[in-house]
Amino acid sequence: MKIIPCPGFQAAGVAAGIKKDGRKDLGLILADRPAAVAGVFTRNRVQAAPVRLDRERVGAGACRAVVVNSGNANCCTGEAGYRNALRMARAAAAGVNIPEHHVLVASTGVIGEPLPIERIEQTLPDLVRALSPEGVTDFAEAIMTTDRVPKGISRQGRIGGRTFTVTGVAKGAGMIRPDLATMLCFIMTDLEADPVVLREALAAGAQRSFNRITVDGDTSTNDTILLMAGGVSGAAIRTPAAQASFQTVLDDVMIALAKWVVKDAEGSNKLVEISVRGAGSDADARRVAETIAHSPLVKTALFGEDANWGRILAAAGRAGVPLDPGRVDIFIGPVQMVSGGTGCGKEAETEATRVLKGEEFTIAIDLRLGTGAASMYTCDFSLDYVKINADYRS
Amino acid sequence: MKIIPCPGFQAAGVAAGIKKDGRKDLGLILADRPAAVAGVFTRNRVQAAPVRLDRERVGAGACRAVVVNSGNANCCTGEAGYRNALRMARAAAAGVNIPEHHVLVASTGVIGEPLPIERIEQTLPDLVRALSPEGVTDFAEAIMTTDRVPKGISRQGRIGGRTFTVTGVAKGAGMIRPDLATMLCFIMTDLEADPVVLREALAAGAQRSFNRITVDGDTSTNDTILLMAGGVSGAAIRTPAAQASFQTVLDDVMIALAKWVVKDAEGSNKLVEISVRGAGSDADARRVAETIAHSPLVKTALFGEDANWGRILAAAGRAGVPLDPGRVDIFIGPVQMVSGGTGCGKEAETEATRVLKGEEFTIAIDLRLGTGAASMYTCDFSLDYVKINADYRS
Repeated sequence: MKIIPCPGFQAAGVAAGIKKDGRKDLGLILADRPAAVAGVFTRNRVQAAPVRLDRERVGAGACRAVVVNSGNANCCTGEAGYRNALRMARAAAAGVNIPEHHVLVASTGVIGEPLPIERIEQTLPDLVRALSPEGVTDFAEAIMTTDRVPKGISRQGRIGGRTFTVTGVAKGAGMIRPDLATMLCFIMTDLEADPVVLREALAAGAQRSFNRITVDGDTSTNDTILLMAGGVSGAAIRTPAAQASFQTVLDDVMIALAKWVVKDAEGSNKLVEISVRGAGSDADARRVAETIAHSPLVKTALFGEDANWGRILAAAGRAGVPLDPGRVDIFIGPVQMVSGGTGCGKEAETEATRVLKGEEFTIAIDLRLGTGAASMYTCDFSLDYVKINADYRS
Repeated sequence: MKIIPCPGFQAAGVAAGIKKDGRKDLGLILADRPAAVAGVFTRNRVQAAPVRLDRERVGAGACRAVVVNSGNANCCTGEAGYRNALRMARAAAAGVNIPEHHVLVASTGVIGEPLPIERIEQTLPDLVRALSPEGVTDFAEAIMTTDRVPKGISRQGRIGGRTFTVTGVAKGAGMIRPDLATMLCFIMTDLEADPVVLREALAAGAQRSFNRITVDGDTSTNDTILLMAGGVSGAAIRTPAAQASFQTVLDDVMIALAKWVVKDAEGSNKLVEISVRGAGSDADARRVAETIAHSPLVKTALFGEDANWGRILAAAGRAGVPLDPGRVDIFIGPVQMVSGGTGCGKEAETEATRVLKGEEFTIAIDLRLGTGAASMYTCDFSLDYVKINADYRS
């Protein structure tokens, strides 16, 4: 991980015994002073207790801390679950001596089992003692479920002659193991910013990053992205130019994390960009990209490294948007596979198969109808995906 | 197969060398006299050449013959493909000495490769010689791709004191092997009926059967259902009561074939009905049923025989329709797993796991919001599905 700790924030991650294997499962981020905050949350109608709590609190635009557990999603746990989310926030607030409403909460793990809140409360003093600027690495570990590696990234920019830092940490999306089906992302910056500006920036960044990835189309009940701006750099977002500078750096961090999440999804061997252009509108292009990116047939062909353009075209054809098969071009990497709806022959297939053996490539579809464009990131659909997701919860 | 040959029809199936392994791959159905006909076709915007041809011809409401090949989909083959579909119909018409426009065509197999039309033309005389009333069994074999068994079924009913027969033959839906991604169904009856009545009956029957099944949500470019009424029984559909009698028998045949297609899909081990009730509308119920039936996480849990209700509830939650998680009940077979959005405990899970070990069962979801209801048939998502679909085309 190339994480530069974000000035003005401390973090920590420890083991509270929520995960059965003794790995770190409780994390805390603490801002030195109240930070401006913005959040985006799952659109699933079934929302975990911590998501309900954060939605209420994030509207105020300020927070000091985020406490996160892995190993239990605290979802479908009824009113007791909501009370446990409150207790978790309260314990963190007491531990670092800040107002309770300045604490946000996130959980990821098994759905439908009671949160072991006592273990969290008992471990919180240890967690607080472990806080340090470099603790962000431990924090990244503590929020992992079946992620193969902890995921964190930092980028810096300059506004008004001052350097600012954006540091983001994420855990895996995409249905990575029975019930451990959550994407969490926490982003810190030492810029000073109004919550309204942060909200706009986060919404735009999410649209370009986490809203463009898919592993299996299943949306979690716990998905959460939080952006906190602590302000200690002395640089502030006060002009459109400053906002643009920040957006560039933020997008960079969010896109890198989102791609990483797809690449690290269990069972994933390939990171594939599905890039659609020439559609009647951007929305049409998006629907075609999504349909291809979710198609089990396309994804199993990616796993098999099979240059099976018929499946790509058939998936595009069922996306429900205007499409003239006789105009469609398809490219796998730089290799044109389909021209005007018909295949380009065996040689193209041989070349495309070489592209498919790589770990990262783009599949481009040109509908040649208009100027609408969109792209999505997806991964292959492997034997490991099924093995992992068919296993009994244990 | 319990096929009663339908009076007034002959059929045949032979090997023309389109499939590489020498299995039967060319079939013909011939009505003794012009039959009323109705068809429903794939809604995919990418449509194979035979689908384009049939759409044009079926509007006239009458036909004598259907010629079908497996091993090649004649799709994404440009204008040459359309000319080959025409040649295939012309060869069949010449072989049995009927007008060319009375012949319909269907193909299933690899997308994007030229149809070996010469082999088909050369084999047609053999195919014609093989025609017989009992030939429907060979026909059912000739349209198979990776179906494990040929699928045909007959039912009889009575109208005006006369017995009539409905005989249907189908081949597998659901992305059964690289590119062999087509559902074909041919239904014969010896009733006399107006094409307008047949169209209504077929549309209603399809809605209750093939439009309620899913293997992986990928729609083929070649899906075709044809219903032919030859009229030799002497019974006719002239009254609403007669139409209702016919519809009951037709639905019975179509639902049985549709369920069989899901059960026989490669990689499928379980036939699962997803039954949703208590939704705001039937359309809402359908969306919830479809989202659950397509969810890779739900389907891998079915494969793993894991009573993972959290995934079912999470899939329902992302269906995009009104849903109050705190009201939802979920049943696996007769076992209630979720009551008002929270789990019913370990004992229920143990009992449900026993249900999941069966080959056929229902998962019922009651949203307790309204009176909308719908159900879908799906199968599990297995290691074999990925293996089969990741294999290189060969």
